[in-house]
Amino acid sequence: MPSHVITAVSAHDQRYALERGAGADSIHSNPQYSYAVTQLHAGDLRGTGLAFTLGGGNDLVCAAIRQMSESLVGREIEELMTGFGDVYAQILEHPQYRWLGPHKGVVHLALSSIVNACWDLWAKSRGLPLWLLLLDLQPEQLLNTLHMRYLDDVLTADEALDMLRSHERTRQQRMGIIERGYPGYDTSIGWFQYSDDTIRQNIIKSLDRGFEAVKLKVGSADAARDIRRAYLVRETVGESARVMLDCNQQWTLEQAIAVCHELRGMNPYWIEEPTHPDDVLAHQTLARAIAPLQLAIGEHLPNQLLFKNYLQAAACGFVQPDCVRLGGVSEFIVVSLLARKFGVPVVPHVGDMGQIHQHLVLFNHIALGHEVIFLEYIPHLRSHFTQPARVEDGVYVTPQAPGSSSDLKALKRKM
Amino acid sequence: MPSHVITAVSAHDQRYALERGAGADSIHSNPQYSYAVTQLHAGDLRGTGLAFTLGGGNDLVCAAIRQMSESLVGREIEELMTGFGDVYAQILEHPQYRWLGPHKGVVHLALSSIVNACWDLWAKSRGLPLWLLLLDLQPEQLLNTLHMRYLDDVLTADEALDMLRSHERTRQQRMGIIERGYPGYDTSIGWFQYSDDTIRQNIIKSLDRGFEAVKLKVGSADAARDIRRAYLVRETVGESARVMLDCNQQWTLEQAIAVCHELRGMNPYWIEEPTHPDDVLAHQTLARAIAPLQLAIGEHLPNQLLFKNYLQAAACGFVQPDCVRLGGVSEFIVVSLLARKFGVPVVPHVGDMGQIHQHLVLFNHIALGHEVIFLEYIPHLRSHFTQPARVEDGVYVTPQAPGSSSDLKALKRKM
Repeated sequence: MPSHVITAVSAHDQRYALERGAGADSIHSNPQYSYAVTQLHAGDLRGTGLAFTLGGGNDLVCAAIRQMSESLVGREIEELMTGFGDVYAQILEHPQYRWLGPHKGVVHLALSSIVNACWDLWAKSRGLPLWLLLLDLQPEQLLNTLHMRYLDDVLTADEALDMLRSHERTRQQRMGIIERGYPGYDTSIGWFQYSDDTIRQNIIKSLDRGFEAVKLKVGSADAARDIRRAYLVRETVGESARVMLDCNQQWTLEQAIAVCHELRGMNPYWIEEPTHPDDVLAHQTLARAIAPLQLAIGEHLPNQLLFKNYLQAAACGFVQPDCVRLGGVSEFIVVSLLARKFGVPVVPHVGDMGQIHQHLVLFNHIALGHEVIFLEYIPHLRSHFTQPARVEDGVYVTPQAPGSSSDLKALKRKM
Repeated sequence: MPSHVITAVSAHDQRYALERGAGADSIHSNPQYSYAVTQLHAGDLRGTGLAFTLGGGNDLVCAAIRQMSESLVGREIEELMTGFGDVYAQILEHPQYRWLGPHKGVVHLALSSIVNACWDLWAKSRGLPLWLLLLDLQPEQLLNTLHMRYLDDVLTADEALDMLRSHERTRQQRMGIIERGYPGYDTSIGWFQYSDDTIRQNIIKSLDRGFEAVKLKVGSADAARDIRRAYLVRETVGESARVMLDCNQQWTLEQAIAVCHELRGMNPYWIEEPTHPDDVLAHQTLARAIAPLQLAIGEHLPNQLLFKNYLQAAACGFVQPDCVRLGGVSEFIVVSLLARKFGVPVVPHVGDMGQIHQHLVLFNHIALGHEVIFLEYIPHLRSHFTQPARVEDGVYVTPQAPGSSSDLKALKRKM
């Protein structure tokens, strides 16, 4: 294996304007999709890592990346990734920066970007797409890249190892997904400010493009608007398509219970982020109140501890970890292991626009036996990636280029 | 009332070296006590707000303060604080910055500093110490300075109003605390790296100075060290003093259960931060396993939602909100209302070294009827405050100067 030593780390504040109304939900009314980008410079290779924000404060994440990544300089990537769990822990548990979380907010977003850059460089240095690197690792090797602290009461390292090993024997049965491609779902038909007409037109286009699942943003001050639009979507897509409703944390518990009962009739596949993501017990109460209707949560859960609590409390039916918010690919995998233990499906939130997660869902299915559901698809930043995800007939075409598909065109001058 | 218009906001990155070993615990081995300071410039007045960090990344909080406080310029302080809850919400729920939390980490620390500066300026503009300003406000006025979103399932605004009103009638019975002063406890006898001898000597000095409660840092890799030192402290202070044991998040749930059983015999008043603060359910399990031994938690809970969950889950016997981590004085009061509803005592963590909290505990006792327990005392930054808290015979002497006692000497040039 050729040696690839990291000689420098740079951070880049990339912000992208969106078309009018795109990306807006009940809470985030004026987003500017942005990445706090880590670049690891290693000879002719660049490891690229992303953390996702909505614009304001993206520079704070970049500043944190610069401060927290210094120890990577001088490390060789193969050597770094052997026992990467310890490297991860050193950054995560820094005795001063830890105070700024712990394990949440700006410093955790920075960790996310740094960790993703390490995985990207590793995959590139081996000439493999990330999904194939992950599948190539021995269970012990993979486990050494993770940080499983504070999880022993529900999942020990030994159990995780057993889980990986036991699924190795049946991998071949699940490899077909590589050829078939992973199904996508279309988030962009129903942004919050879109008119009813726009939504109808978007749905027709979406069905034409092969999608069989769509998402509508809800959480209006006027619950009647939400209900009317949800039934409109159902009417337009027909009975067989899946429709997800995303509230983006807008409701109180009481509102959520009331509106969910009204929405039941249009048969939503899930209700997403009904209320504040820190409120595990409110979600538990809600989940019980509206069963068998399911909740989905995760895009704003800061770390594996919150996921553990949601799973223990049976407070959601789907988890939606996002590797550009959590501590990167490593913590995404830990959450996937936890979810598998509890028998809960993983349907990532794609702050990365699906670029990295298209790799991770293949790993989840093949190596962990997670059910194939679908992967969110958001097209708004396609033109900015050097290798945008290809979705054809509603299906992600498996990426083959080395790395994690994270490279962006025209990075701004390093900060 | 004279008009005080905010003409500028500045942020200051203040970091202070500590004596060897001071401030160190099982997790935070090398702290540099630091404040991200907000200054509101209003004629001849300066409103000062603090957020506390351990050094690294304090500049990130300062940068966030600058970005998030712009809307305060041009506002008159009396007008601003009438309906301050809405101002608070506008900063808290900014549709882009919210993504960096929500309501946690660097942006929430910045909010804390900004909010505290507003309260400080308000108190100074009225010529009142913060505790007296708080007691002077009518219940409706006070409620308008708070942001109680997502709490309706356990505490509505109407209930909070009733709580404030019902305690007004009996205030006089509790005013004696102003003259007597609020009792302190001594955190600094038992930092993690102090030798057994140093701890013994510190305890003797502490008892001489009138303290009747002390804290020891635990969370060693070697549980036997913790247990030995805990019994040593008990032996040194005698049977009647209270001894608190603080683990600073070091244990797993399993370790915590095992060590707590061993510690029971030295009769600790509480076990503080046994494991990761995001893990509500681990604390619930632990609290049940070690009852009647009590847990204390809060210095790292990012916001009122986590406190709500801890209280609902009966996962702790004491809450320790810190107004230099939470959204300042406003969110501290919300947490105090919640705790009162659940009958759980509030014993603040003092990232502010007790400067602001000496005001807030008086309010909590007199206006909310919270039990007087004691307030943490940490002397390491005394020389840097213009009006350091006075603790005599183990008791905080009630401050009389206008404001929140937050002013620091020699602020660095504004960032």
